Amino acid sequence: MQLGMIGLGRMGANIVRRIVAAGHTAVGCERHVEVIDDLTTELGGRFRGSTDLVEFVAELDTPRVVWVMIPAGLTGATVDQLARLLEPGDIVIDGGNSRYHDDIARAAQLAPLGIHYLDIGTSGGVYGRERGFCLMIGGAAEPVRYVEPLLRAIAPGVSAAPRTPGRTGEPGPAEQGYLHCGPAGSGHFVKMVHNGIEYGAMAAYAEGFNILHKADYGNRAGGEYSAEETPLEHPEYYRYDIDIGEVAEVWRRGSVVASWLLDLTAAQLRADPNLDSFGGRISDSGEGRWTLDAAVDIGVPAPVLSAALFQRFASRGESAYADKALSAMREAFGGHHELPGQE
Amino acid sequence: MQLGMIGLGRMGANIVRRIVAAGHTAVGCERHVEVIDDLTTELGGRFRGSTDLVEFVAELDTPRVVWVMIPAGLTGATVDQLARLLEPGDIVIDGGNSRYHDDIARAAQLAPLGIHYLDIGTSGGVYGRERGFCLMIGGAAEPVRYVEPLLRAIAPGVSAAPRTPGRTGEPGPAEQGYLHCGPAGSGHFVKMVHNGIEYGAMAAYAEGFNILHKADYGNRAGGEYSAEETPLEHPEYYRYDIDIGEVAEVWRRGSVVASWLLDLTAAQLRADPNLDSFGGRISDSGEGRWTLDAAVDIGVPAPVLSAALFQRFASRGESAYADKALSAMREAFGGHHELPGQE
Amino acid sequence: MQLGMIGLGRMGANIVRRIVAAGHTAVGCERHVEVIDDLTTELGGRFRGSTDLVEFVAELDTPRVVWVMIPAGLTGATVDQLARLLEPGDIVIDGGNSRYHDDIARAAQLAPLGIHYLDIGTSGGVYGRERGFCLMIGGAAEPVRYVEPLLRAIAPGVSAAPRTPGRTGEPGPAEQGYLHCGPAGSGHFVKMVHNGIEYGAMAAYAEGFNILHKADYGNRAGGEYSAEETPLEHPEYYRYDIDIGEVAEVWRRGSVVASWLLDLTAAQLRADPNLDSFGGRISDSGEGRWTLDAAVDIGVPAPVLSAALFQRFASRGESAYADKALSAMREAFGGHHELPGQE
Amino acid sequence: MQLGMIGLGRMGANIVRRIVAAGHTAVGCERHVEVIDDLTTELGGRFRGSTDLVEFVAELDTPRVVWVMIPAGLTGATVDQLARLLEPGDIVIDGGNSRYHDDIARAAQLAPLGIHYLDIGTSGGVYGRERGFCLMIGGAAEPVRYVEPLLRAIAPGVSAAPRTPGRTGEPGPAEQGYLHCGPAGSGHFVKMVHNGIEYGAMAAYAEGFNILHKADYGNRAGGEYSAEETPLEHPEYYRYDIDIGEVAEVWRRGSVVASWLLDLTAAQLRADPNLDSFGGRISDSGEGRWTLDAAVDIGVPAPVLSAALFQRFASRGESAYADKALSAMREAFGGHHELPGQE
Repeated sequence: MQLGMIGLGRMGANIVRRIVAAGHTAVGCERHVEVIDDLTTELGGRFRGSTDLVEFVAELDTPRVVWVMIPAGLTGATVDQLARLLEPGDIVIDGGNSRYHDDIARAAQLAPLGIHYLDIGTSGGVYGRERGFCLMIGGAAEPVRYVEPLLRAIAPGVSAAPRTPGRTGEPGPAEQGYLHCGPAGSGHFVKMVHNGIEYGAMAAYAEGFNILHKADYGNRAGGEYSAEETPLEHPEYYRYDIDIGEVAEVWRRGSVVASWLLDLTAAQLRADPNLDSFGGRISDSGEGRWTLDAAVDIGVPAPVLSAALFQRFASRGESAYADKALSAMREAFGGHHELPGQE
Repeated sequence: MQLGMIGLGRMGANIVRRIVAAGHTAVGCERHVEVIDDLTTELGGRFRGSTDLVEFVAELDTPRVVWVMIPAGLTGATVDQLARLLEPGDIVIDGGNSRYHDDIARAAQLAPLGIHYLDIGTSGGVYGRERGFCLMIGGAAEPVRYVEPLLRAIAPGVSAAPRTPGRTGEPGPAEQGYLHCGPAGSGHFVKMVHNGIEYGAMAAYAEGFNILHKADYGNRAGGEYSAEETPLEHPEYYRYDIDIGEVAEVWRRGSVVASWLLDLTAAQLRADPNLDSFGGRISDSGEGRWTLDAAVDIGVPAPVLSAALFQRFASRGESAYADKALSAMREAFGGHHELPGQE
Repeated sequence: MQLGMIGLGRMGANIVRRIVAAGHTAVGCERHVEVIDDLTTELGGRFRGSTDLVEFVAELDTPRVVWVMIPAGLTGATVDQLARLLEPGDIVIDGGNSRYHDDIARAAQLAPLGIHYLDIGTSGGVYGRERGFCLMIGGAAEPVRYVEPLLRAIAPGVSAAPRTPGRTGEPGPAEQGYLHCGPAGSGHFVKMVHNGIEYGAMAAYAEGFNILHKADYGNRAGGEYSAEETPLEHPEYYRYDIDIGEVAEVWRRGSVVASWLLDLTAAQLRADPNLDSFGGRISDSGEGRWTLDAAVDIGVPAPVLSAALFQRFASRGESAYADKALSAMREAFGGHHELPGQE
Repeated sequence: MQLGMIGLGRMGANIVRRIVAAGHTAVGCERHVEVIDDLTTELGGRFRGSTDLVEFVAELDTPRVVWVMIPAGLTGATVDQLARLLEPGDIVIDGGNSRYHDDIARAAQLAPLGIHYLDIGTSGGVYGRERGFCLMIGGAAEPVRYVEPLLRAIAPGVSAAPRTPGRTGEPGPAEQGYLHCGPAGSGHFVKMVHNGIEYGAMAAYAEGFNILHKADYGNRAGGEYSAEETPLEHPEYYRYDIDIGEVAEVWRRGSVVASWLLDLTAAQLRADPNLDSFGGRISDSGEGRWTLDAAVDIGVPAPVLSAALFQRFASRGESAYADKALSAMREAFGGHHELPGQE
């Protein structure tokens, strides 16, 4: 079977590699010609590419399967172009980080043209090539069924995890690592919530590590008292010098918090035990915000997911004005002047 | 009636001033002799003081009323000294920011000696002199009754606020601004929760002001898209240049969020419209932490109070290690390198 | 001057009453004829009304000032009708709880017709009649200037609060209780953030009161130990029986948390000391959600405002599925079966 | 080598089973004689037990290794008894859920007697028997070294997870699944933080699942508008009927949130797709609370861990009074009466 891939960045290229490794072929579209050349060399006769969208479309067998894997802000324009170039029965897949609202609009835009639209939330990051990608799919049943051989090639496969107790017989799609979640938008909706959870779980680890990191505070704290600062009541309880990299390692086996995120963290702490190479400004790429928007819309409490998101904002300095306002209030009612910048 | 005051800092001196203004007399104990001299000059014959505790105690009429108003870390040693100097029937008052646990211990320590102990949580800050202090009192009924003339002089009095609907007849103590809350420790317990609420309410304003402050973000945001950053979907919704000082002012009259904290904030914003004189490192003085400890002990959800406390910690850089851990994880699974330090 | 008011519910009628009390006249539009009749009787010759919008418009002096004060979901249709009935130079005011997005759209819709549009966020609730309403106004400068006599009649006036230090001379609009915040939508934007803060401040009090409420937990807790339950380490610290109504009362005078919300709470606790008449299902009326949406859009941390909102969701049972999921996980890894429904 | 185990509940018995399976022997102490009998039968000659502590101690080879695995509230009394029965060189291990404060005290209590004390935080739950237990150890180096053969038998071993990149050569203890974290108390300290993280990560999943669960809200919501309720602005965005069990399954392979907790959740959802067998009252067993206490003591922000803890409190009805207070305030300023108990 053949996959057309628009965008041969890290994710797009790795999906193509898995497709080819599974015995399928791929055609790429990408404005950097050297990326195409490199991939052509790497994958031999099973891949070819073009820098031109019209040429790319012409290369594809019908019904065409066109996977769009580009920054979310550019996807709309590309879908518009595809709407003009494709034919009834063709399938457009958005595998990027689009907001699911856009999927609903795009599916409705393409439907009158007879073009199918699938939104496929794709998780796996840089490890996806070897580990496989987890695929969350929204759209109609027919095109999902049609591309299933490709999905199976991209997904991790059932052997990637022990089977869940109670699941027997022929493994279903979810056990292979891909799931048709529902109609248009549902794939990116589920992926969005996935990322919301990811933010929350990451923050849980980060806060815990921060507590371990400061477990020696009883040694550091001075013994002086003032009306402004709370002395540590029991410094003897905080005299631990914890090796956080070793803790992350030991938790990987047998503990309740064992996870892939922890595996990665253990590797990072192995390579950089004090995390000195990181500045701690944390980007957020949309899904965490949209998850919170959804929670607010439908009235679901999300205290953990929101706390995780807000910590990211604050890591980029976005609490500064609020902090100044608090200082101003404290000075006003208490005559509390700020202390100089000691930690 | 006579009040003995140990500690003539801002709070102690202002309490003495209210006592004297109400026609009582006061004796002070304070190691800075010039503070005593100044207050003696200011208050004429109704105040005298000493730098020596023994001398101070000797000056007091019996039964002695000794109000201790010093940093919480020093109160214990002073109470120990008083235990040796005072006589049965004397009354020790801790008006500082002690943890209520200590009150329970100190009341038990003094009881066998026949010395009464009252813990009086005292709110009012630098405005207390004119506005009066709100007094939350823990201890036995008898000494509370004995010192009531002093409490009435220190508290704001019923005219400080309109009477609550349903309260008629002779105003009770709470309407005067002082309240016997219960046995030893209950005064500081109620004051502790008061400060916990204060942190939460302050943070509510600060967050709101921060949103107003950034309401012009649609003008500031660039138009570029990347896989790392979320473009603002509707920049047209964020093109407001709000005068926050004027907003604080207008909310003071007729709005649901009118409060004394808002009055103070309006004054600060009037004096420094951009809050440029504040760095935004926010101290915390114990009560907010203890409130959270209490909530955890007795199993009461306190998401707002804890968020307010944690924002203070974070304002002092205490999220740094957690933020680095998050950056490390993001790099690991997504190959996301941190962006350079733009805002 | 004359005000046209569409919607004579609690808020609309009280605004009309203040307008009339200030010497202006008013015309009302309201589908319940008995409401119009009652108000006509009450206000004598200075008010008349109609159940018909066309008739109502015909009654108004030009340029017409039409204040729409109806549920937000109905405002759009009414503005559409007004667009057909009004003339260039007329002024439409939305004083309800519309989302500011809609104001931007409506101002743009009416501008080509020469009709002015003002959004006026109106705070004050049931007390507004006597206390005056706090008005936050968005729109162009010219119509704001035109309706200023009406705004002054509706707003509380400068005497409603002591003047802020540093404010001298002729009091400005903010000191009167109304503020032109900026272009279309800014009035409801500022009102939205106001309500966000309101939710946060309310939650701060509610959490604090909850801690006081359970301060007797050391008396209630059993002495039994199990692997599932944490025994209270120090029951002796939680043996207080706090009179919460008295605490609310004492905090009204001299304390840092004195506020109008606290005044109201003290009155409610006076009338119903155990709050037995309340079930604790808390509605939310949009602004708290929209505040959070805005914070997320522009990347401002809002942990307190979000916690307050989520508590409202949870009060309506919306955590139930999450709680079940947690129970399911605990059973899975720990064999922890849920305890029967004791508190 | 020989292990003495006090307490043959689920955890204690499974540790004994792993010890025996590894070729060591064990002696048990347990008041339920039938438990001893069953285990004796099951394990043949490699296990024997007693209901009497004196007899149990007499059975042990010296230096004795006594692992105490009983509810935390009972551990102190048992350690006191052991202090009287054991001899210099013997080793007491607390493998239960003690607070690490107690470990510091117990190690200090036993040190003058020449008895070693180790605190071993033990994670793994009901799966520990097959999966091995993750062991976090506090105490002196010498006794840790002595019991290492036993630790290796109890821990999962290096094969339980792929080796972390950068870790080569002979696997260290952390890679085996046990870690000497530091002096007395550090084992339970690290275990405590582990559980704090566990609470946070669990809540992240639970909130995400709750959002998926309500993703059909656009179908459910009525179309009516009132001043009290916010209509759903875009019901078309919430018309998904997500199969949450399938989502949990698909995330197990290739996604960023793959974890052991997710594995367990997938199994629970397989067995009970709507989680109907759970009531959603969530216990908390101390460590989550103590983690928060530690964060507060040392000034580390923990918004996620605290939100997770408070959700548990709230699931047991502990927000009720706060909710009533909020309803009371809303009624006071807005005349908002509570809606009847619809969801």
